[in-house]
Amino acid sequence: MKNLFFKKKINIKINDILNLFKLKKIKKNILINDIKELDQATKNDISFFHSINYLDSLIITKSNLILTNKKFAKFIPNNKKSIFVDNVLPSVAKITTLFYPEAMDDIFDKKIMPIKKKLFKNIQLGRNVLTGKNVKIGKNCFIGHNTIIESNVLIGDNCQVGSNVILKNCVIGNNTRILDGAIIGKKGFGFLPGKINNTRYPHIGSVVIGDNVEVGCNNTIDRGSLSNTIIGDGTFLDNQVHIAHNVKIGKNCIITGQVGFAGSSSIGNRVMIGGQAGISGHLKVGDNVQIGGGSGVIKNIPSNTKVMGYPARNIRKFIKENKTND
Amino acid sequence: MKNLFFKKKINIKINDILNLFKLKKIKKNILINDIKELDQATKNDISFFHSINYLDSLIITKSNLILTNKKFAKFIPNNKKSIFVDNVLPSVAKITTLFYPEAMDDIFDKKIMPIKKKLFKNIQLGRNVLTGKNVKIGKNCFIGHNTIIESNVLIGDNCQVGSNVILKNCVIGNNTRILDGAIIGKKGFGFLPGKINNTRYPHIGSVVIGDNVEVGCNNTIDRGSLSNTIIGDGTFLDNQVHIAHNVKIGKNCIITGQVGFAGSSSIGNRVMIGGQAGISGHLKVGDNVQIGGGSGVIKNIPSNTKVMGYPARNIRKFIKENKTND
Amino acid sequence: MKNLFFKKKINIKINDILNLFKLKKIKKNILINDIKELDQATKNDISFFHSINYLDSLIITKSNLILTNKKFAKFIPNNKKSIFVDNVLPSVAKITTLFYPEAMDDIFDKKIMPIKKKLFKNIQLGRNVLTGKNVKIGKNCFIGHNTIIESNVLIGDNCQVGSNVILKNCVIGNNTRILDGAIIGKKGFGFLPGKINNTRYPHIGSVVIGDNVEVGCNNTIDRGSLSNTIIGDGTFLDNQVHIAHNVKIGKNCIITGQVGFAGSSSIGNRVMIGGQAGISGHLKVGDNVQIGGGSGVIKNIPSNTKVMGYPARNIRKFIKENKTND
Repeated sequence: MKNLFFKKKINIKINDILNLFKLKKIKKNILINDIKELDQATKNDISFFHSINYLDSLIITKSNLILTNKKFAKFIPNNKKSIFVDNVLPSVAKITTLFYPEAMDDIFDKKIMPIKKKLFKNIQLGRNVLTGKNVKIGKNCFIGHNTIIESNVLIGDNCQVGSNVILKNCVIGNNTRILDGAIIGKKGFGFLPGKINNTRYPHIGSVVIGDNVEVGCNNTIDRGSLSNTIIGDGTFLDNQVHIAHNVKIGKNCIITGQVGFAGSSSIGNRVMIGGQAGISGHLKVGDNVQIGGGSGVIKNIPSNTKVMGYPARNIRKFIKENKTND
Repeated sequence: MKNLFFKKKINIKINDILNLFKLKKIKKNILINDIKELDQATKNDISFFHSINYLDSLIITKSNLILTNKKFAKFIPNNKKSIFVDNVLPSVAKITTLFYPEAMDDIFDKKIMPIKKKLFKNIQLGRNVLTGKNVKIGKNCFIGHNTIIESNVLIGDNCQVGSNVILKNCVIGNNTRILDGAIIGKKGFGFLPGKINNTRYPHIGSVVIGDNVEVGCNNTIDRGSLSNTIIGDGTFLDNQVHIAHNVKIGKNCIITGQVGFAGSSSIGNRVMIGGQAGISGHLKVGDNVQIGGGSGVIKNIPSNTKVMGYPARNIRKFIKENKTND
Repeated sequence: MKNLFFKKKINIKINDILNLFKLKKIKKNILINDIKELDQATKNDISFFHSINYLDSLIITKSNLILTNKKFAKFIPNNKKSIFVDNVLPSVAKITTLFYPEAMDDIFDKKIMPIKKKLFKNIQLGRNVLTGKNVKIGKNCFIGHNTIIESNVLIGDNCQVGSNVILKNCVIGNNTRILDGAIIGKKGFGFLPGKINNTRYPHIGSVVIGDNVEVGCNNTIDRGSLSNTIIGDGTFLDNQVHIAHNVKIGKNCIITGQVGFAGSSSIGNRVMIGGQAGISGHLKVGDNVQIGGGSGVIKNIPSNTKVMGYPARNIRKFIKENKTND
């Protein structure tokens, strides 16, 4: 799928990548299409392997060129080419920046202008709406006052966008409501810790919001780094919810006020989360899970379970442990 | 009291309501005035009984027409008429929508215009202030930049409203300050869970804020469903506080940063709540209660007590349990 | 250092201060320069001593005039003059208001105007930017749409300020980014509790943000009361972080989403704090500390330690205690 929001450099060849790491050039200097996660990559993309947690994806990846560390050499299938580096993730950041030199930062969209009503005929507009280039808004939409929609954002039919909303790097389905003050699509809070300085890595992903979704007031939803941040159809988010980069939330979930999701966690369908609960990064929460208000989830939660507490545990256990308290 | 914000249909008769549920019409097709909670209803209003928790209110209600389930028939006083339905709350939502067809949704106010300075003589205005119809602002008020005040909002004397504030469906007393970025009066986050879809119910309540109140930056205060969300005189809210629909907060409370209140909880007077604490829904917290920062309150708290912890318990118990920790 | 944001009354003499408390005037009615905390005061400033926690500062203070309570008389060095009052902190508030009569409240800046592009040549400007008097913005800066920069704010070179940002009473270094919706520099949430009413005290401090800092979306950072709120060089704050008055955060810290800091806490360098953690007021957190997500820190944390839990304790202890849970 073409990246709508970040311009990719074409003509990146394998020797350009090798050159980034002062590695020896090779004769067969083939074109590399893009950098992708293992399960998203096609045969002309470079991908990367940095943890045995991703062994399943390594086995099925279509990529023929894997960036990794020597200690993982034995896992790389024989039919793939490898590039070995000392630190995989910082190297991924460098390669991503090579392909997408503009994705590193997050300056406001300078092409933005007061919306041209002529171009958006079937929608109702508030005052002082600003839009960038190539914005598409479906029919029967409402866009509230002082709202900013940056270039290339796509909004489906019958959507309601509130006032003081900022939309960038995102695609929104049909019948979806984005309430006042929500900020969607800024780069995620991701670093590569260094001894002296923390360095950021580029965020070329976007935020993909489904149909019949509601995003509450003052929510912040960051875009993904390599993959997208996703909010599934029918999911409702209450006020002051924070969703970090690469989080995937399933369908028909109910997420109550002030809940926070750390980066790259994946939430199933029909999950209900009580107010102020927090979900740590890189976790999997199954389908039909219920998480009590104020819980701190720090490990995977299987489907069809109810958890509560900090750390979150089976709700019967939580209630039993706290029975005598008063 | 007349609803300032939602237009009520007049001429709703009892057979219109029976018809909603495919029930047999009756001969004496009397006019029904409104739908109200038991303790708010007058004799011409329909009310509802869905839980024995509300038995006290059922006994004193002035309503003569009670929507309920057959299993509660024995509780309904003999002098009242009943309408029996399978699911009471979804049926309340249907009746409310019959009376208030416009309360279901929350589109931005299309009647809004740049404020006319001539109409607001004794106030100091920031730039780009927008106001709707029938907005009343008392004397000696300050309204900050880019602030939106929707139709029918009432603001008392000597109030300070900051910049980037959004006010709708609310009534504000005297000497009250609403700080930058606060969003007040959107519909609450309330659903009737269904097997396939969650359905929202209408919110015909408003937010009623007393005198000498301070509402912090980026607060979100939702309006009530049938009753109002209330912030009592002299109560101060810090930044990033979230208050859900129907919450009632008493007088002279101090609510610190990032505290969250789930729906329909009721807080007494002179209550102090530390940062990031959460109060579950449908609870009663008494007067002079102190709740430690980060606490999770999941049951009623009697007056004049100090609690802390998750779940919140007596503070002496919390300290004792955590004494040896380091 | 001169206060950039609040106008100080000159010609305040010691008898003006004695008069505030109905104390007997003295003959040698000397000029008092300012009111300062013990470690900030110079010889012509009045300072105050209200808790033996500040004994170290009392010994080294340059101030010659100490406001205190009689019970602390024995601690005051012989070469200093004392003024005795019943309640020290409310009296500090009164004296501060005497020096800075305009610091009590926080009305929007009325001198604000649409930014004059001619005055800011080397910067890139969004739409509808408003600025006050004496605003200084360095070269190569970006200021986003609808952003408000109040009078006397200083911004260094190469900074990026997002959209819908509100800056007041603050000084920002070089290469720093302030993301969309952040609100910086409002007065802190500080009270002197009274039997009938809570009274606020004046906030004459500002927010001082270093170089290479990132402040996330919808952050709220309050200015200090007598001293400043400080964010050190290289520190990154994620979305929806709340920082109360007088908090000092060191260099190269990473503060994740929805973290909250209560007033006057001091955080070392290279501290990492997980999402939704809370730091109570008046605490000291050392260098290189790691605080797990969701933790509630209620006591000082020494340098080079990892803590987690509520209350936060050594992470090994936390893990051990929660091992058997599921």
